[in-house]
Amino acid sequence: MATNTVSQVVPSAEDAAALLKAFQGWGTDEQAVIAILAHRDAAQRKQIMLKYEQMYSESLMQRLQSELSGDFERAMYHWMLDPVERQAVMANAATKCIQEEFPVIIEIACANSSAELIAVKKAYHVLYKSSLEEDVAARTTGNLRIACLLQLLLALVSTYRYDGDDVNMGLANSEAKIVHEAVSNGTTDQEELIRIVGTRSKAQLNATFICFKDEHSTSITKALPHGADPTGYLRALRTSVRCLADANKYFAKVLRNAMRDSGTDEDSLTRVVVMHAEKDMKGIRSAFQRRSTVSLEEAIAKETSGDYRSFLMALLGS
Amino acid sequence: MATNTVSQVVPSAEDAAALLKAFQGWGTDEQAVIAILAHRDAAQRKQIMLKYEQMYSESLMQRLQSELSGDFERAMYHWMLDPVERQAVMANAATKCIQEEFPVIIEIACANSSAELIAVKKAYHVLYKSSLEEDVAARTTGNLRIACLLQLLLALVSTYRYDGDDVNMGLANSEAKIVHEAVSNGTTDQEELIRIVGTRSKAQLNATFICFKDEHSTSITKALPHGADPTGYLRALRTSVRCLADANKYFAKVLRNAMRDSGTDEDSLTRVVVMHAEKDMKGIRSAFQRRSTVSLEEAIAKETSGDYRSFLMALLGS
Repeated sequence: MATNTVSQVVPSAEDAAALLKAFQGWGTDEQAVIAILAHRDAAQRKQIMLKYEQMYSESLMQRLQSELSGDFERAMYHWMLDPVERQAVMANAATKCIQEEFPVIIEIACANSSAELIAVKKAYHVLYKSSLEEDVAARTTGNLRIACLLQLLLALVSTYRYDGDDVNMGLANSEAKIVHEAVSNGTTDQEELIRIVGTRSKAQLNATFICFKDEHSTSITKALPHGADPTGYLRALRTSVRCLADANKYFAKVLRNAMRDSGTDEDSLTRVVVMHAEKDMKGIRSAFQRRSTVSLEEAIAKETSGDYRSFLMALLGS
Repeated sequence: MATNTVSQVVPSAEDAAALLKAFQGWGTDEQAVIAILAHRDAAQRKQIMLKYEQMYSESLMQRLQSELSGDFERAMYHWMLDPVERQAVMANAATKCIQEEFPVIIEIACANSSAELIAVKKAYHVLYKSSLEEDVAARTTGNLRIACLLQLLLALVSTYRYDGDDVNMGLANSEAKIVHEAVSNGTTDQEELIRIVGTRSKAQLNATFICFKDEHSTSITKALPHGADPTGYLRALRTSVRCLADANKYFAKVLRNAMRDSGTDEDSLTRVVVMHAEKDMKGIRSAFQRRSTVSLEEAIAKETSGDYRSFLMALLGS
């Protein structure tokens, strides 16, 4: 469920006028911008953008980018994108520096339902005249060193998983054994593991993960070798297993990692809050709270400042 | 375009009554069955089945199976299935004897548009509580001998190709070189070839195939090694390249092969005619005619007999 509160009416012309007023004069009235846009849903934001362009013959998106700055500007830019297109844009950007940005691709592939993933891939076709699959796969050329990582990512973005709850316990048992063998092998003979993680339904995978834990008294992610991981494959595997097993818990962990003592990772913070505020942020917030002494709002408020903080707080509904 | 002629009205109650009449008495009136069902489109056939069940408390499908026999029965069974579900049923059957039946999987993966393929995969979820991807991929377990074949099939069924016409000629040139290297290698180092065939759009692939032909004065399918192919991989690769390059020409060839002097392959004949009669059979018929001295109808009439022949002829519109 969403955390931000949304206006019930859609006063797009009034909103457009109020936004122009916030832009004019000495300095921008960022609080007015937040008071409007953080409380409009995706369809309303689209209407406001159309209305603004009609009324003032300029793009609201461009105006926002010139009026705002820093983390706040980047967060607002992503917030204003259509939620499905936003994911296509983020996935495309991630394909361009795949070894650093693969978690974005994994989140899009694994946290969405099958139907949602297809919608993102459809938007990707329209925006980039190519498929997400081919753009991920094409990175292999001349880059065999990271073949295993790319094979995993390609499997994740390609598959159209069965979304139902039916589970085959016999299969879960036998595949837990295959997973154990692959995990013990480190980074060799990963085909079977990639096949399982890349094609089975989330319900089936959860059954397999539980069998694994019952048998070996440890989770798959803990059993995976730690330490040297020059290609990022092991990290990607850990990320996908976590994201497939429990997306809320996974995103809560991303948020916790983004707010470590060593410094704030604003990109990850923005990504999770903007992408999930109007979708499933309540679940993520609860998952965060379960492992933390402070609430998600308190933690974020402590780590951020200024308009960026106000905006994230508004998206979190506080 | 379709070849069978379709009734403009949908007299489902009358049709149901006429079908019951055709079933009753001494022997079945097969010609009456054909005269009705070959001239109803998918939506009409569905309505007739519903009406028949309502009126006579029995399944029309089961009654047809008990009244008809042989190739005619099998053709009618497939004809009566919903076109999308029919492909899911055929794909599932093919996963069970994948080394013999992989052309069915390739046809479904490569001849459909991306949206059509997703519809088939969605129907597959509903019917089998699993995904086509996982059922293809799962065949690998303990069967590493055919890993290359399965890797190709998995790539083909998984991918959500870009469907547009945009083509990158520089990419076509460089990938034609990669394809040439892989083709020269026989069955080793096939990852790059599978990646290209498995992810690029049909328009892009056609550009690559043309570059290949310009450079090497032969087509990819001819350049692929002939002879020993114990796993079927080379045959599957040839099938996919043909099907992706020109589906009409490919299906015309399947029909020609199904009607060789050495004997008729009724399964392939039925499959192509039933699956394409109300879709794109006109294009396949033209492609057949271009390489043959007789028309498709003449060729099929010569190879078949009885009610099976009458039914196929009706589907072909003659």
